[in-house]
Amino acid sequence: MRILILGADGYLGWPTAMRFSNRGHDVHIVDNYFRRRAHEEAGTDTLIPILPDLPERVTAWKDVTGNDIGYTEGDLCDWEVTEPLFRDFHPDAVVHYGEQPSAPYSMKDREHAVFTQTNNVVNTMNVLWAIREHAPDCHLVKLGTMGEYGTPNIDIEEGYLEITHNGRTDTLPYPKLPGSLYHLSKVHDSHNIHFACRVWGVRATDLNQGVVYGIETEETTLDPRLATRFDYDDVFGTALNRFCVQAMIGHPLTVYGKGGQTRGYLNIVDTLQCVELAVANPADAGEMRVYNQFTEQFSVVELADIVQKAGKEHGLDVAIEPIENPRFEAEEHYYNPKHQKLLDLGLKPQLLSDTLVESMFDRIGEHRDRVIEDHILPRDRWRA
Amino acid sequence: MRILILGADGYLGWPTAMRFSNRGHDVHIVDNYFRRRAHEEAGTDTLIPILPDLPERVTAWKDVTGNDIGYTEGDLCDWEVTEPLFRDFHPDAVVHYGEQPSAPYSMKDREHAVFTQTNNVVNTMNVLWAIREHAPDCHLVKLGTMGEYGTPNIDIEEGYLEITHNGRTDTLPYPKLPGSLYHLSKVHDSHNIHFACRVWGVRATDLNQGVVYGIETEETTLDPRLATRFDYDDVFGTALNRFCVQAMIGHPLTVYGKGGQTRGYLNIVDTLQCVELAVANPADAGEMRVYNQFTEQFSVVELADIVQKAGKEHGLDVAIEPIENPRFEAEEHYYNPKHQKLLDLGLKPQLLSDTLVESMFDRIGEHRDRVIEDHILPRDRWRA
Repeated sequence: MRILILGADGYLGWPTAMRFSNRGHDVHIVDNYFRRRAHEEAGTDTLIPILPDLPERVTAWKDVTGNDIGYTEGDLCDWEVTEPLFRDFHPDAVVHYGEQPSAPYSMKDREHAVFTQTNNVVNTMNVLWAIREHAPDCHLVKLGTMGEYGTPNIDIEEGYLEITHNGRTDTLPYPKLPGSLYHLSKVHDSHNIHFACRVWGVRATDLNQGVVYGIETEETTLDPRLATRFDYDDVFGTALNRFCVQAMIGHPLTVYGKGGQTRGYLNIVDTLQCVELAVANPADAGEMRVYNQFTEQFSVVELADIVQKAGKEHGLDVAIEPIENPRFEAEEHYYNPKHQKLLDLGLKPQLLSDTLVESMFDRIGEHRDRVIEDHILPRDRWRA
Repeated sequence: MRILILGADGYLGWPTAMRFSNRGHDVHIVDNYFRRRAHEEAGTDTLIPILPDLPERVTAWKDVTGNDIGYTEGDLCDWEVTEPLFRDFHPDAVVHYGEQPSAPYSMKDREHAVFTQTNNVVNTMNVLWAIREHAPDCHLVKLGTMGEYGTPNIDIEEGYLEITHNGRTDTLPYPKLPGSLYHLSKVHDSHNIHFACRVWGVRATDLNQGVVYGIETEETTLDPRLATRFDYDDVFGTALNRFCVQAMIGHPLTVYGKGGQTRGYLNIVDTLQCVELAVANPADAGEMRVYNQFTEQFSVVELADIVQKAGKEHGLDVAIEPIENPRFEAEEHYYNPKHQKLLDLGLKPQLLSDTLVESMFDRIGEHRDRVIEDHILPRDRWRA
């Protein structure tokens, strides 16, 4: 298949590109290096060193595997970039990670909020128009987020909810209560994509992903040059990855508020498995499938306990320290999101285990000298 | 009260500004003349002549009533425009009509779609940040649209729906199935405003308005210079207004498809009443109220029949001619939207009657020579 990967310089995009190339697909990758610029501005960086740009990454990949990957350095908000990707490469599937992916980034101030929503909504709209005009059979596999749902007091279904009201029944998009302006941009995308499916007959799969953890995939371990980025800072880092770094540098694990915030989590290797399953089983024309993409759920306190326990077995003395929650979120809530559809397609989860956490410690330890300690704690509060 | 009217050069914005000024409020108005430029580009125009810009409009208003209205000519997407409006004028209420308001415009092509969503989402986000930073008690009265809901197979409630699912219950935002990229921009706004209320404590009322018809308000009739615009073209015109123009020029009333499309309608004088009621009864801090703002519902065929009948009494020979539907919409569907909350606040509807339609004929007849006949029929199809 011809597969286009948008946002392929990122934590998940690059491993995804290598995976499809490794499986013999014709892969073309795109990125505008937004994440690298944002790190430079913030004075933060990936813990694991990565090659400096797409040309060097695809060259290393060719060295190691002999496989070619095509690349485009450009901004998908620019139609002059987006249109030729679909007109000339004519993908069978496009995997879309190409968005500003951080909730804290979107909440910094007005400029960051406007940038996040404009960037994410416009580039996805460009992709939808490019599919409509140049590749109407192309299957859009779009990365959404479980954070679109928020924490309603009822079970979370996969994208749609059958509602009976005053004696009549309809199946409608699941109501959303997103918790940041970033998460809102994903909700906007979901509505736009649903429209493109309903009206233009686009085929799409929206992967509402949980929080991803982990460092290595089958392909990143082939050669140090093939490593993917690993963020642990206050803006791009996520709970488990950040806790592992804190444990290694002897910093208490910083739990936001009561720590009862419960979310879905998955290993980076399962992200690749899910995306492969979605691409291998395309949506029908006019169908927008929604899959909730995670394998287990944990509260923040549970995660901290797991890291503390693994740290002890690793000879680390790990403390846990609650700090004021900078976010706006329920710290104790009902949470029961379904995640059956990817299992039905064949997903074999790699569940979180102490072994895995310990392997992360080893990898983090190799780059311990790169840790920028003063950019781990949150710097922005979300309330007015 | 100090009242800021955004989009005050438009069909509803200008009459709203005059109404609040007439009632003794301190009014400041804003517009960037988007609608005028769009008409120029399309070769269309308002049927009723209007003064050329905000300075001339407020000067005429001062001549007629002795009241001052302040004005700003500028784009709310530009923070340099939006911020001073809230920082310096410090409104008690802001009535927000300042958006690209046309579904057909948003569906013309990619550029128009991207413009519509960017313009509407970014200017509303600027308003939310300006309220947060400079006028946290200001009540945002935002014009949404009944088109956000689409035509689900269950009763449409006012903004929220109590859902019982697997034995648990929550009240969640009503699921949306908007029918155009314009309507989607309003759904995005609604989600963003809801977030600002939940997280920043903003007070907001989202008026999900039906299709507005009519030409005159208490203030427009004071002087010909105070007239508001009246659009009947394929892009900015709406069903009833367009039918009245077609009847007057001897053109068959063009019903899109089967004509069973049913929507809520209201007279422009009721729009003003609703907005006044919302402003006089502000939302609580942190509350996002949603009111469905219309007074009656009609199918397109029913509307055409009403205009045909009124035309006959007016001595006009009015034909009805179904044409291919350029839109993507159900032409036969269940439709039962609630609209109780504004009635509870005191709305006294002025219902559609033949008398009113005949008074529109007279007013249209005065400007019959201005009708641009070749821009009434739809030029763009919405499907791929």
